[in-house]
Amino acid sequence: MIHSKGYAAQSAETDLAPWNFERRDIGPHDVLIDIAYCGVCHTDIHLTRNEWFPGLFPMVPGHEIVGIIAQIGSHVTKFNIGDRAAVGVMVDSCRECEDCKNGQEQFCNVSPVVTYNNRDHYGMPAYGGYANNIVLNEDFAHHVSEKLDFAAVAPLLCAGITTYSPLRRWKVGEGHKLAVVGLGGLGHMAVKFGVAFGAEVTVLSTSPNKEEAAKKLGAHHFVVTKDEEQMKSALRSFHFIIDTVAANHDLNSYLALLKTNGVYINVGMPAEPWQLSSFTLATGNKVVSGSGAGGLPETQEMLDFCAEHNIVSDIELINIKDIHTSFDRMLKGDVLYRFVIDMATL
Amino acid sequence: MIHSKGYAAQSAETDLAPWNFERRDIGPHDVLIDIAYCGVCHTDIHLTRNEWFPGLFPMVPGHEIVGIIAQIGSHVTKFNIGDRAAVGVMVDSCRECEDCKNGQEQFCNVSPVVTYNNRDHYGMPAYGGYANNIVLNEDFAHHVSEKLDFAAVAPLLCAGITTYSPLRRWKVGEGHKLAVVGLGGLGHMAVKFGVAFGAEVTVLSTSPNKEEAAKKLGAHHFVVTKDEEQMKSALRSFHFIIDTVAANHDLNSYLALLKTNGVYINVGMPAEPWQLSSFTLATGNKVVSGSGAGGLPETQEMLDFCAEHNIVSDIELINIKDIHTSFDRMLKGDVLYRFVIDMATL
Repeated sequence: MIHSKGYAAQSAETDLAPWNFERRDIGPHDVLIDIAYCGVCHTDIHLTRNEWFPGLFPMVPGHEIVGIIAQIGSHVTKFNIGDRAAVGVMVDSCRECEDCKNGQEQFCNVSPVVTYNNRDHYGMPAYGGYANNIVLNEDFAHHVSEKLDFAAVAPLLCAGITTYSPLRRWKVGEGHKLAVVGLGGLGHMAVKFGVAFGAEVTVLSTSPNKEEAAKKLGAHHFVVTKDEEQMKSALRSFHFIIDTVAANHDLNSYLALLKTNGVYINVGMPAEPWQLSSFTLATGNKVVSGSGAGGLPETQEMLDFCAEHNIVSDIELINIKDIHTSFDRMLKGDVLYRFVIDMATL
Repeated sequence: MIHSKGYAAQSAETDLAPWNFERRDIGPHDVLIDIAYCGVCHTDIHLTRNEWFPGLFPMVPGHEIVGIIAQIGSHVTKFNIGDRAAVGVMVDSCRECEDCKNGQEQFCNVSPVVTYNNRDHYGMPAYGGYANNIVLNEDFAHHVSEKLDFAAVAPLLCAGITTYSPLRRWKVGEGHKLAVVGLGGLGHMAVKFGVAFGAEVTVLSTSPNKEEAAKKLGAHHFVVTKDEEQMKSALRSFHFIIDTVAANHDLNSYLALLKTNGVYINVGMPAEPWQLSSFTLATGNKVVSGSGAGGLPETQEMLDFCAEHNIVSDIELINIKDIHTSFDRMLKGDVLYRFVIDMATL
């Protein structure tokens, strides 16, 4: 077995704390990654606190992982020792179902293994990236360009792909007006990608004081959603809206901002269901679309796109001992825009 | 003024009854249509009974209208006296907003005039097709092929276009598995169009005894939604689902039947909002789409497509004096598949 150390929640009621554990031995197709950095996703808070559903404890969270290949199995062809590598929200799947064959492994119909908070195909709990290392099948690790700021790449593995994937799927680009709701980890990536794809990007926010930050990220316009006049002038103006807000909120006032045939993309995952009127949907042929992360080929495509266009997350690097303060600050929206743990501090 | 007679609800509490009223004189761009047949849409029940919102009374319902051009204004070029003509859910719009310019007049941003239960641009109440005639701008009347059974064309103007439009917009066709929920006026048209477009069509129904009827319409498969085993075997199997059910119902069990990137099209208009979980939407990148009737160009396209493929509604022709019985029977689902009023019985 591989010895690992990391930070784990022993239960939904206890804070994360240092913990030693074991990972499986490296199989012929596995790689061992020494983790350099791990992004802090809102999901890490939800899952370690059982906010969505009961979890599997002890839980080592973290699914925005970058590091260096430290060992490779006998049949590994994709990586060499010393290569940069990245791991996102999943570490295995069946490879044989329709979704896996279509490169949508995140929706594997048979035996998906997400990066933490479930069991892997060997019956062991999957532990995430708040740790010094990780073992996984080479297919689920991605290449990372040496050109990019390595720590700032980590959030691309969840916040990045989660916004990149639907914007690509809906072919958002030149000639399109795109609104981004919420300017956190996901929202700031949606702005960067929207701008890179050639769309005219507007940030919708409750906070007027975020305008400067939005423009700095490349947004062309800013609308204060609490300002009735501004909202009125934005009626029927967007081809696409991507909503990144994790808290429960009403979406009907946003739907009114879509043009006919406009698409509302939800990636924020509020816990409570939307209340959605069939009349609101019918007027203007409106579309509400969910989106869940991205598959293996698209994740690599996204990382390559980022290398080509020099796109990374804006981050604040933290010591892992400050993880609780960071959780608290995230819940207040007090981060520009993603905390990333420097695993050297473990 | 043009003298008209029809059936009107004098209030939301009173039954429809014979009523004499006036329509505007024929302007230079107007046509007068002598109505031959009018389809009976579920909307006629909702609106005359204030089930969605308070109505404008007296109300002459009916927006599935076919008839013969009886008079034309001095500048009319589209029709000659004696031509077949059809009118759907709208009779005017601003013609200048983005939606009107894009042929989506049903969503006119400025001054849409639906066929009944609102005021027209002259300040007069718009009265619908449960009447002997109607006056409207020629642009809002459509040509009808002499090849088609005229009475059976009437329901194409609402039930037809409402299902044709989203199936076309989503490019449903060969290689696609399409499910149709509900086998009423809209549902039976969705089956016919789905089959004509080349899709593999499954009818989803609570009633096992509708299987024969579904197959007769051209459906390839039939799933009883109350049968757990049948529903289980249909999981993740459809590219598209079109839901035509007007009554309140849960859609989450249907969403589970969609493949990844599948699209759920709602045209049924239940009064209560959907409860829609962001997790359900995210898993499989699911899409929920509304759709509202169709614009002028697409309505004519649909009528031409129907002429080319000999598609009409399956109807039961009724005497207008039996309208109350027909409403009652519709609410019980006791009609194959649309009542059409023979206006000669007025």
